[in-house]
Amino acid sequence: MLYLIGLGLSDERDITVRGLDIVRSCSRIYLEAYTSILTVPVNVLEEYYGKTVKVADRDFVEIESDEILRDADKEDVAFLVVGDPFGATTHTDLVLRAKERHIPVRSIPNASIMNAVGVCGLQLYNYGQTVSLVFFTDTWRPDSFYDKIKQNATLKLHTLCLLDIKVKEQSIENMARGRKIYEPPRYMTVNEAVAQLLEVEEKRGDGICGTNTVAVGLGRVGCNDQTIIAGTLEELLDAEVGPPLHSLVIAGQMHFLEAEMLKSYAINPASIDQYADIHE
Amino acid sequence: MLYLIGLGLSDERDITVRGLDIVRSCSRIYLEAYTSILTVPVNVLEEYYGKTVKVADRDFVEIESDEILRDADKEDVAFLVVGDPFGATTHTDLVLRAKERHIPVRSIPNASIMNAVGVCGLQLYNYGQTVSLVFFTDTWRPDSFYDKIKQNATLKLHTLCLLDIKVKEQSIENMARGRKIYEPPRYMTVNEAVAQLLEVEEKRGDGICGTNTVAVGLGRVGCNDQTIIAGTLEELLDAEVGPPLHSLVIAGQMHFLEAEMLKSYAINPASIDQYADIHE
Repeated sequence: MLYLIGLGLSDERDITVRGLDIVRSCSRIYLEAYTSILTVPVNVLEEYYGKTVKVADRDFVEIESDEILRDADKEDVAFLVVGDPFGATTHTDLVLRAKERHIPVRSIPNASIMNAVGVCGLQLYNYGQTVSLVFFTDTWRPDSFYDKIKQNATLKLHTLCLLDIKVKEQSIENMARGRKIYEPPRYMTVNEAVAQLLEVEEKRGDGICGTNTVAVGLGRVGCNDQTIIAGTLEELLDAEVGPPLHSLVIAGQMHFLEAEMLKSYAINPASIDQYADIHE
Repeated sequence: MLYLIGLGLSDERDITVRGLDIVRSCSRIYLEAYTSILTVPVNVLEEYYGKTVKVADRDFVEIESDEILRDADKEDVAFLVVGDPFGATTHTDLVLRAKERHIPVRSIPNASIMNAVGVCGLQLYNYGQTVSLVFFTDTWRPDSFYDKIKQNATLKLHTLCLLDIKVKEQSIENMARGRKIYEPPRYMTVNEAVAQLLEVEEKRGDGICGTNTVAVGLGRVGCNDQTIIAGTLEELLDAEVGPPLHSLVIAGQMHFLEAEMLKSYAINPASIDQYADIHE
């Protein structure tokens, strides 16, 4: 059996009891380590499971899937994913490869940012499509997310913005020279995301994510040091959200209770009253 | 501290290790029992925790929140929610009441249908707004969900349909006579949901959820006997999805890999090729 097991969002103890029992009984364990991170390194997981854990980066999962699936029709193999197993397309690909070989697959769900973001008080069923914000470079400043936020805003819906994670990236020079030297990991902060949103608003000008747009910055959702800060984008530009990972929600129209929750997390509750679109 | 703890989707072992440790250390434990259900009764939870669990129905949570919050500034109280704690508005209300009294609140996230639905292969970031389908009665056949599915379809997005749950409902006669006699619980099946969608499509006629619309029926997501069946609505009208709870996804445009996953679950893979809107 190939088990895809969600690890949740914080540390080694956010796995479910069912998931932990399965991990401890598997003969090989892989940890997907490129779409998200836990707050603990892999050796903490190894100690907790009493097992060796092989870290699988993007190349490994995409190129060496044969190795992951080896003998999984006869023994149990665990593929661990931070959050929920079905957050990223790559895992669909792994499942399809397993199915082609008639390897049974079972997944153990867990919290991911896609549902845990509900903790900020904006109701999950009032969200539209999720968008991803990538780090702008000098020459690459893609802004297609703006159209999606605009579509959501037109429908009065909230937008969850997933913020870029860069791990195991090579500089252009090292890549050109074939040197396997990697840049330090980078995690987009709420402040960086807000700056990019304001820049694109400046260019596009539809009033979708301007200085007075109400939003929520989240840090380390699900961890004991979780941070939730609500305010206008102008207020969030300099807000202290703490260590990574961060996420951002652009608020749409909100129910009275959603606004009350936001005010409880607000830099300045009066800003929520002034700028949020609140209905009874 | 007031702890809101997600129990996940299946049985007593879908709680996270962190959540379980907290539950076992709390002085009072409440189980919210009206927006979803586990596959095990409350006495199984009590045995597993080694603690008494008080079942809290909707009235209790809304009217007796004082009792839930009693002394929670001095001792630890657990409020258990099937799935993730922030699936339903009522819990936001409880958090706000706690905050008013300066009771610290912490939540332990878990999988909910809102993210675990990703297991069907349709990617979570391609979903629009979630809709709820309620049981039609002779006199009440609300169809506002149709407009939301239409909005999502226009944006080529998938729609998760949450299906109605009726627990502790009184008949009109028993309610009128003040008799606390409750009807047996009812859980909307995929078949019932599809019949309602086809009825509304017949009336509205925009081609949003007709007989050839591709959809996915899900039963007991996250459980060992999880069922996933893809097909046209006509095919799903009589499909066997197994015991409750059920959910339904109306597919929007899909990526090639999403379509491959759907075909692996299809009643008739050729229907997916014929009727799905697939892009490379």
